[in-house]
Amino acid sequence: MKLGRLNHIGVATPSIADSIGHYRETMGAVKVTEPFDLEAQGVKVCFVDTPGENGTHGTQIELIEPLSDASPIAGFLAKNPLGGQHHVCFEVEDIAEAREWFEEQGKRILGPTRIGAHGTPIFFLHPKDMMGQLTEIMETPKEGAHWSN
Amino acid sequence: MKLGRLNHIGVATPSIADSIGHYRETMGAVKVTEPFDLEAQGVKVCFVDTPGENGTHGTQIELIEPLSDASPIAGFLAKNPLGGQHHVCFEVEDIAEAREWFEEQGKRILGPTRIGAHGTPIFFLHPKDMMGQLTEIMETPKEGAHWSN
Repeated sequence: MKLGRLNHIGVATPSIADSIGHYRETMGAVKVTEPFDLEAQGVKVCFVDTPGENGTHGTQIELIEPLSDASPIAGFLAKNPLGGQHHVCFEVEDIAEAREWFEEQGKRILGPTRIGAHGTPIFFLHPKDMMGQLTEIMETPKEGAHWSN
Repeated sequence: MKLGRLNHIGVATPSIADSIGHYRETMGAVKVTEPFDLEAQGVKVCFVDTPGENGTHGTQIELIEPLSDASPIAGFLAKNPLGGQHHVCFEVEDIAEAREWFEEQGKRILGPTRIGAHGTPIFFLHPKDMMGQLTEIMETPKEGAHWSN
């Protein structure tokens, strides 16, 4: 496998509205997508765009708020009440190939491959097998399909 | 202030050698800088390059290993023995202006502005004032000065 783009970092928050305020007003973010519910994962999410080099799109920040106490994010916030860094997400060209690769490496995959917040297939790898980092692998979105503008 | 590039994410590790192995062998990283000691901060660091869009440089991953039990990273590892995400680092054009901006916002700045791992001035902001994220602000390196190739 070849290391793909760091598509986004996932950041848990007790209030997506407060986090958007923080990124817009304190950090100077210009583009933030409209929050939407990912019911299957029990979370509300939105993306903050950061600039890349030479006018390209940079790594996004995914803000994640639990929809209920049953959400896995609720457990994270119980330990980190202010929120914080939750996962990293790297792109791959072929999700099935990537899944096979990590299985061969003996890495635990958390559940089936499913459609993620960008509308492309994703899966998560167990942080205990990934040097402490909950790692999402996502198939690269088709051009222009995943940006907020 | 305008949100700058996400220069890198900082990832703590009990073994920089193991983490380099993980990124190279499991994740398929191609470019990893030689680890070096940042004595003033009590850490050994190196950078894993990730690709950006259209052949640009992407956000780097800074691997950070404590040089001794007195390092602030040692405390992080006591809570997270496998390692994990430690901080985020955004670029700004002018470090003095950025420092003034965050001071005006009432954000706690951790220590004086100093030279960071990329050789440009940096400072850190208190995670409790930054929605739970330890946030590094760095002045954009001069072109070509900060990459491993």
